[in-house]
Amino acid sequence: MLQQIVGLFRRKKEYRNPVPTVDIIIEIGNKIVLIERKHEPFGWAIPGGFVDYGECLEDAARREAKEETSLDVNLKFLLGVYSSPKRDPRRHTVSAVYVATAKGKPEAADDAKNLGLFALNALPPTMAFDHAEILSDYRRYKKTKKLPSPK
Amino acid sequence: MLQQIVGLFRRKKEYRNPVPTVDIIIEIGNKIVLIERKHEPFGWAIPGGFVDYGECLEDAARREAKEETSLDVNLKFLLGVYSSPKRDPRRHTVSAVYVATAKGKPEAADDAKNLGLFALNALPPTMAFDHAEILSDYRRYKKTKKLPSPK
Repeated sequence: MLQQIVGLFRRKKEYRNPVPTVDIIIEIGNKIVLIERKHEPFGWAIPGGFVDYGECLEDAARREAKEETSLDVNLKFLLGVYSSPKRDPRRHTVSAVYVATAKGKPEAADDAKNLGLFALNALPPTMAFDHAEILSDYRRYKKTKKLPSPK
Repeated sequence: MLQQIVGLFRRKKEYRNPVPTVDIIIEIGNKIVLIERKHEPFGWAIPGGFVDYGECLEDAARREAKEETSLDVNLKFLLGVYSSPKRDPRRHTVSAVYVATAKGKPEAADDAKNLGLFALNALPPTMAFDHAEILSDYRRYKKTKKLPSPK
């Protein structure tokens, strides 16, 4: 029976996969919504989280936006997918990043301990994960209408 | 000890995540490369496969294209990400679909038992997974330059 348990762990390692996540750049007027994280890694971040098994990415994006900001968002387009193994210090994640619009007043909830509306030329200095890079791609898109290229 | 085993399965289920994959629409002249699958689900498919832990999507796309078609591809852009829980009958996968170009002569290998070059108006009648939908989005992109919208 011990062998079976060892086997379970072995199999788990052998078939280990990166974990899909979503992040949502929520536009309200000329600003975007960022959250300050309650858990490590600390810092400000684009709202987002893990995709559930059986849930499509778009539903995960709407759910996470609602959970963290209390907003009902309207997904406009996919900015890109970010998958560097180093983007999250906890484990290898693959994030689909959507740009969305919302109306109403955002309120921090769930994994967010604080929340703010930021102009793109006045972002918080400390961004978690690769979110500074993602927002740099978003800024470039706003200027040029060009989506990030594959690396 | 039985309880521990049950616990392992429970935890596995609780934290179960969709699995990231890549598919690559490889353009050679005016045609694209499709493979006929060696394993279930059978049928013709866009070349692709599972992303390894620690591997970024672009590297996975170049690796899978090489393994299945023997081609070195140049990734042009991301067509979209497909994540319906029903897209793969085996388990819930999330696929990033790249459009790429290649030169040279493709040759079937690895999971491909056969390979062909197809014009977009003469695709095989039986496509595996949601690949007919993906190629429909690709055809629309070729005509309109519009990428698929979030669902």
